[in-house]
Amino acid sequence: MGSITPSPRSTCPQLITHLQSTLPSPSSRTSLITSVLPSLLTSISQIALILRSSHTISAHGTANSFGDDQLNVDVLTESAIRSAISQPNSSSIITASSEEHPVEISVHTHFSSNSEQYTIAFDPLDGSSIIPSNWTVGTIIGIWDGPTALNQPPATKQIASLLGVYGPRTTAILAIRLPDAPGICLELALTEENEWIITNPSLSLELQTKTKYFSPANLRAASSYPAYNELISGYIKEEYTLRYSGGLVPDLVHALVKGHGIYLSPVTPNHKAKLRRLYELCPVALIIECAGGKAVDERTGEDILRVEVKGEDERGGIVCGTRVEVDRAMGVLLGQ
Amino acid sequence: MGSITPSPRSTCPQLITHLQSTLPSPSSRTSLITSVLPSLLTSISQIALILRSSHTISAHGTANSFGDDQLNVDVLTESAIRSAISQPNSSSIITASSEEHPVEISVHTHFSSNSEQYTIAFDPLDGSSIIPSNWTVGTIIGIWDGPTALNQPPATKQIASLLGVYGPRTTAILAIRLPDAPGICLELALTEENEWIITNPSLSLELQTKTKYFSPANLRAASSYPAYNELISGYIKEEYTLRYSGGLVPDLVHALVKGHGIYLSPVTPNHKAKLRRLYELCPVALIIECAGGKAVDERTGEDILRVEVKGEDERGGIVCGTRVEVDRAMGVLLGQ
Repeated sequence: MGSITPSPRSTCPQLITHLQSTLPSPSSRTSLITSVLPSLLTSISQIALILRSSHTISAHGTANSFGDDQLNVDVLTESAIRSAISQPNSSSIITASSEEHPVEISVHTHFSSNSEQYTIAFDPLDGSSIIPSNWTVGTIIGIWDGPTALNQPPATKQIASLLGVYGPRTTAILAIRLPDAPGICLELALTEENEWIITNPSLSLELQTKTKYFSPANLRAASSYPAYNELISGYIKEEYTLRYSGGLVPDLVHALVKGHGIYLSPVTPNHKAKLRRLYELCPVALIIECAGGKAVDERTGEDILRVEVKGEDERGGIVCGTRVEVDRAMGVLLGQ
Repeated sequence: MGSITPSPRSTCPQLITHLQSTLPSPSSRTSLITSVLPSLLTSISQIALILRSSHTISAHGTANSFGDDQLNVDVLTESAIRSAISQPNSSSIITASSEEHPVEISVHTHFSSNSEQYTIAFDPLDGSSIIPSNWTVGTIIGIWDGPTALNQPPATKQIASLLGVYGPRTTAILAIRLPDAPGICLELALTEENEWIITNPSLSLELQTKTKYFSPANLRAASSYPAYNELISGYIKEEYTLRYSGGLVPDLVHALVKGHGIYLSPVTPNHKAKLRRLYELCPVALIIECAGGKAVDERTGEDILRVEVKGEDERGGIVCGTRVEVDRAMGVLLGQ
């Protein structure tokens, strides 16, 4: 699995205090707040270090179980997350599966009767194609209640989602939505002292902004998808501002930070879906919903989080972002 | 001007050796090779540190001489470059002007009869709009022979150009073209030991690539510029891959690293030119030409480096990248 430069664990005292005072019944989520999330944030801080010194991006000579070619950094970042969640200071039971190793494996067995139990589904390094050019890339992590993420209702069972953002700084986006409570979506930044601070306690995709942004993934599909082409022409005509890096994490974070945006990744017979529901679409959809936005399946218009994930390799298209923009786009794409 | 965290100077022994064995008459460029370029690379390493800990991007409450609002990071990065080039260990005479402080000011006066004399024109932080979302941003620096960059033939007097790239890693692109010698364009990366290493000694925009990339800046202009709109439709129809971050440096670096790309920033009466010739277009054009590509004025089709810069605020549109793509685009835009 490659080796990782050992580095100190990051800390997040401000976040722990914030969650203990914000979440309902925090005592039933002690492990989530004080162990699982801090461990995952540590893995993000370690991935930032790995990327900072990965001057040669090369093929690892292996493929993951889906047959995707693996880069050396894919393997190292995957290992960083697995290492962080297997630390023995966690009192929760964790099951983990990742895009690089897509089988649910139990990580902790030393549990007590009141142990919390979570399943982590993650894409350790999203945006392989833009790593050589030194563009911002990310990590995507979904956290589910219980011993599996499969065949569960995502809207209630996927209770948290975390994005790592590796650019000029190291930042993270965290969304949490516990059953019967409103969701929260906040932004964190890693300081030089390896401490996570909250830089925005409440991200929103529904701000009144002067500039409107669109991010059209899989734009080549527009050549054989007239409705998508019509939509793009509309954005140009109405002078929306284009921002499209080709990395799912940076593209969504741009919208979240600006307070407005629409991200479209449509699917056609010649341009098949690439985004995996378990490792990408579900975690991302929770972030978007907790910021007041909407994330729907591009083919059906149904909320991404309405449909259970049956298998690790399930894929789909997505349209997400500011609610009014998603409704408009789906109106055009579904021909309504 | 704000304060800068003191940090050690970076080193670049491999680059110095490489240039001494590659450039013609290196002894007449001793100061450029051993002092000016290392100092500028140090400023890039320091800007990387500044950005890594700039968790709050805020207005500085000032405007530069052009009337652009300044961010705190604009001011800090400007100061980092001025500080690096004013170190007393340089035996060359340097005149400097920047987008944030656009007047040529002499930096060194302690010169000997065989001192080399250079003018540095720079944009310390390109991509302000995408800094809050933690996307890759850059620094642009042009190095001119002699005491001024104004009213000089850019093709022969602008002898070097340097881009700093701040993403998950810190990298740099350096182009040098001395009179009567072929140009070189190479990529450097900063290690954790603060040493610059050469990661690609010869970048080219003319590779035979499977994927073709386009990067359409100022896309809103297509709404009132039918030829630009036609060009964009063509790229979509022919399934070019879109990559557009909105930062000039990352957008060009993407093409340079991939070996193919076309970047377009057209101008219309309603979408005026934003890119400044002295601080952005000329340095970037040298990089592109040294990588075997082409960089032309979008209105005339003339090479950017053919026309003298008369004033610091001169602006223009640009089409640049892989030669065959630039020719094709200009054919459409000029209606030929």
